[in-house]
Amino acid sequence: MVVPSSSKAMAAWKKETLMMMMIMTLFILMLTKGVTEAKGVPKNRKHHSKSRALTIINESISGGEPYCLSWRMAVEANNMRGWRTIPTQCLRHVQGYMVGGQYYRDISLIIDQAYAYLDGIDPLADAMDAWIFDVDDTCLSNLFYYRVKRFGCDPYNPTEFKTWALRGESPAIQPVLRLFNKLIEVGYKVFLVTGRDEEALGDATLDNLVNQGFVGFERLIMRSAKYRGQSAITYKSEIRRQLVEQGYRIWGNIGDQWSDLQGNFTGDRTFKLPNPMYFVP
Amino acid sequence: MVVPSSSKAMAAWKKETLMMMMIMTLFILMLTKGVTEAKGVPKNRKHHSKSRALTIINESISGGEPYCLSWRMAVEANNMRGWRTIPTQCLRHVQGYMVGGQYYRDISLIIDQAYAYLDGIDPLADAMDAWIFDVDDTCLSNLFYYRVKRFGCDPYNPTEFKTWALRGESPAIQPVLRLFNKLIEVGYKVFLVTGRDEEALGDATLDNLVNQGFVGFERLIMRSAKYRGQSAITYKSEIRRQLVEQGYRIWGNIGDQWSDLQGNFTGDRTFKLPNPMYFVP
Repeated sequence: MVVPSSSKAMAAWKKETLMMMMIMTLFILMLTKGVTEAKGVPKNRKHHSKSRALTIINESISGGEPYCLSWRMAVEANNMRGWRTIPTQCLRHVQGYMVGGQYYRDISLIIDQAYAYLDGIDPLADAMDAWIFDVDDTCLSNLFYYRVKRFGCDPYNPTEFKTWALRGESPAIQPVLRLFNKLIEVGYKVFLVTGRDEEALGDATLDNLVNQGFVGFERLIMRSAKYRGQSAITYKSEIRRQLVEQGYRIWGNIGDQWSDLQGNFTGDRTFKLPNPMYFVP
Repeated sequence: MVVPSSSKAMAAWKKETLMMMMIMTLFILMLTKGVTEAKGVPKNRKHHSKSRALTIINESISGGEPYCLSWRMAVEANNMRGWRTIPTQCLRHVQGYMVGGQYYRDISLIIDQAYAYLDGIDPLADAMDAWIFDVDDTCLSNLFYYRVKRFGCDPYNPTEFKTWALRGESPAIQPVLRLFNKLIEVGYKVFLVTGRDEEALGDATLDNLVNQGFVGFERLIMRSAKYRGQSAITYKSEIRRQLVEQGYRIWGNIGDQWSDLQGNFTGDRTFKLPNPMYFVP
């Protein structure tokens, strides 16, 4: 930021800075609103929501909740399976993790590993070298939706999630978008494979991906009628089998759920992005 | 602890308490010695090693090093592969994690998941239901060895590790030992599968396991001459294939390395114990 010299420009600059600070504060308050509304929070504390909002984030980043750290680690290492909601006592911890910066840092480091891996391979001239990306909370973030769902303390609600997804307003996860663009630039075929229902969410999903900059992928593969009711592992394994049979070599496979990365034809290397908010079997 | 009533007993009790405190302090100092000797620590700080020892642990437990948290998470989720040493800047973080209690808490939660999984299955009368345990840093802890190796900042040294392993003094990881005993009690066949060289370390390993309470297992399977030079994934997959061909049903498979849990015949369910100190391909 450049500090201007004239006093008039100075006043405008001050105003602009103040505006930016206000917007940032509002953003933090929005993200933390879910907690002050949470059942676990005593009502008399609601009145201090502004100062509490920041305290909660700081508490959580400092990792003061040993159980929740263990829980989150167990989730990411695939030791915790079939869970429907996050432990209520970990609401603050997960919130702090998701909005306090660590989630973003974790993703960035993983994407750095993908770049390092990419450096070691060369796509062939036959244009059959492929990467697979999951969509929800891999390409597109549902954090604004899960904020209202108390970061996963509330159970999954398919109707409400559909309403959210139809809006097509999920923002791109930027480090993933950058990797996506790099892959296309150097000649890989990128397949987006999602468990989202094709009939119900096809248009909205495609619109959302494109409006967030995910353009140039080879194919968006969604769950059609014949795969309804199958587990993600079964459905995604079958899709990958078809790609391999078509001659594609799957180098990288990126998802926020272990069910994106397990089963058959998982790819030469998998990348598990963090997601402490929900579990997809 | 019961406080005695007579003044003589009181004096003895005070002396005993003092002794215990001294032993505990000594233990903490021993565990933190590696850091004060580390290259990264300015020499003038060495003189404050006692107070620093505790500070380092507290700093690290509070998770104040966002990069190291990301790094450790990436290791546990199998996103970080082929690394030879831990990042030097994460020495304090990893030390704090290993000796400050969080490592033990993480293991306990994972073993709790194994119990929950165990509750859902019943071994059959044919006595062919099996579990597989890795040995190093799964059954037996090498923490005392890696403390001297600056918790993994120093690269793996096969000669020195052999000297350590020959002593047969690795303590049991208690939550794992309890699960091991439970499994044998309810009728599972437990196989200990390790990459340790059979010829060089066979006797010492068996002695160590037994002196730490690992008794009643079906077989200790070590790397014999024909498997030398193979990666852990290849070697352990082959061992598991043989067990499956002999008719064993592998229900659980527990290890501190992803290479214990990947490849073929991995078992119905795998449990990844934490290990931020070294990577076995």
